[in-house]
Amino acid sequence: MNDAVAARPGTSVEYRITAFEDGVARKRFDRAATEEPLEIRLRAGGDSRTVAVTMRTPGNDFELTAGFLHNEGVLGARDTLLGISYCIDRDVDASQQYNIVNVDLAARELPDFAGLERHFTTTSACGVCGKANLEALEVRGFAPLAGDFTFDAGTLLALPERLRAAQSVFEKTGGLHAAALFDERGTLLAVREDVGRHNALDKLIGWAYLGAKLPLSHSIVLVSGRTSFELVQKCLAAGIPAIASVSAPSSLAIDLARRFGITLAGFVRGSRFNVYAGEGRIRS
Amino acid sequence: MNDAVAARPGTSVEYRITAFEDGVARKRFDRAATEEPLEIRLRAGGDSRTVAVTMRTPGNDFELTAGFLHNEGVLGARDTLLGISYCIDRDVDASQQYNIVNVDLAARELPDFAGLERHFTTTSACGVCGKANLEALEVRGFAPLAGDFTFDAGTLLALPERLRAAQSVFEKTGGLHAAALFDERGTLLAVREDVGRHNALDKLIGWAYLGAKLPLSHSIVLVSGRTSFELVQKCLAAGIPAIASVSAPSSLAIDLARRFGITLAGFVRGSRFNVYAGEGRIRS
Repeated sequence: MNDAVAARPGTSVEYRITAFEDGVARKRFDRAATEEPLEIRLRAGGDSRTVAVTMRTPGNDFELTAGFLHNEGVLGARDTLLGISYCIDRDVDASQQYNIVNVDLAARELPDFAGLERHFTTTSACGVCGKANLEALEVRGFAPLAGDFTFDAGTLLALPERLRAAQSVFEKTGGLHAAALFDERGTLLAVREDVGRHNALDKLIGWAYLGAKLPLSHSIVLVSGRTSFELVQKCLAAGIPAIASVSAPSSLAIDLARRFGITLAGFVRGSRFNVYAGEGRIRS
Repeated sequence: MNDAVAARPGTSVEYRITAFEDGVARKRFDRAATEEPLEIRLRAGGDSRTVAVTMRTPGNDFELTAGFLHNEGVLGARDTLLGISYCIDRDVDASQQYNIVNVDLAARELPDFAGLERHFTTTSACGVCGKANLEALEVRGFAPLAGDFTFDAGTLLALPERLRAAQSVFEKTGGLHAAALFDERGTLLAVREDVGRHNALDKLIGWAYLGAKLPLSHSIVLVSGRTSFELVQKCLAAGIPAIASVSAPSSLAIDLARRFGITLAGFVRGSRFNVYAGEGRIRS
């Protein structure tokens, strides 16, 4: 299908962003860690099956694959593995070739998947490059969020301290991620904690769902960790137009936010923050 | 099977730990964020199916369930959900009752799972409480690691700075987790980075697997984020006897480390650290 030579994805991507500092907005370039899906396919005895799709930073993909499969018990002694290779089939789009690895097992047949660990994921048949992920969301019916919700830069700067004040278990354990929901004036509406970042946001959105408050079209979410594709996708599904973090976003988080009109701010610390997408909502 | 009233798991668990500071070891109590699996079961039209098992901190479980299913497109308008309840079947062990939720859908039949998002997980039939998770590892043949590998407290304290010096992409993006492998003298053997913590450790262990270096029975792993059950489990599978972090471990990470003889250190910062398991390996 495609004769183009695929460029290997790099470990970081450059973006033109807006840096706010002490009330002044400046355009500059910034790099974000690359986030792309990796599909792992097992092959043995003429059969082939996808066993996992994981969001990862490209690089050392064969090591990632071997380490994952060893931990799952699929790879035992070194001679159980014949080889690992990128998928360079001509019917695979060039942009995806480096996001699919084939693992050739020495066994005569594929392992018994029913007996494998529970976090083995089944996968849909759709493409696995980041762009395909974004397109899959359009297929699901998601459209860009309306741009009428705006808020002050100063409101954003006040959120981390309000989240810290509201966190309960974190003070005792230092071990919990948090997701907090604020209105346009920065008033805290709800905060949820969990060992998993995704769970904390799921709890927050579930609180809104059960209370018939969706979509949350006039609110800002602050998360305690890095902002991944999946976190932005959850905000999109809940209609949340702005997501902020004290840490960095991934490349695919930025791409998703830009495509669907979501404001994405990172490194919200002290008197400064970066805006990676949807800066039109922020009044400086 | 079990008439005991299940105690709801709390959001944190108290442990007796050893705190090292400026060369002095003191016993004290510390709290860790609870990590336990939650199994989500859908019910519709007389059918029932487990659609996900996620490691989470107990609390707001119905919100977590509703938020997760809304994001996956299983729950739409509010009237698609009839109810969410804990599993209080008498044939479910009391310790697991609060780790299983049943979701009753208004639909006449279960959704088409083939069309659902790819990170829906299939699940094995085994129990889903943390204790069952640990027992499942014994079933897989894992035994406690030998205790002959020891190292100095000072070696541990030097690791975070060595990891920072070795990280490359992080300096540019601030967005990557890292996992690094050290020998008993604190010499860096390898470092791997990724947007996902688990991936960074998988890459590191995959590097060892492909280089025929497993088991890594005389080494220490340092991870950049919180230490979860899954990270400790990966170390166990690779034979790594010590895992350290600049951040906190979860309850199930501690339980796993104690059961399988793994040294687990947290909050390794400046001149101090906490040891949650396997302190016998550390020479003060």
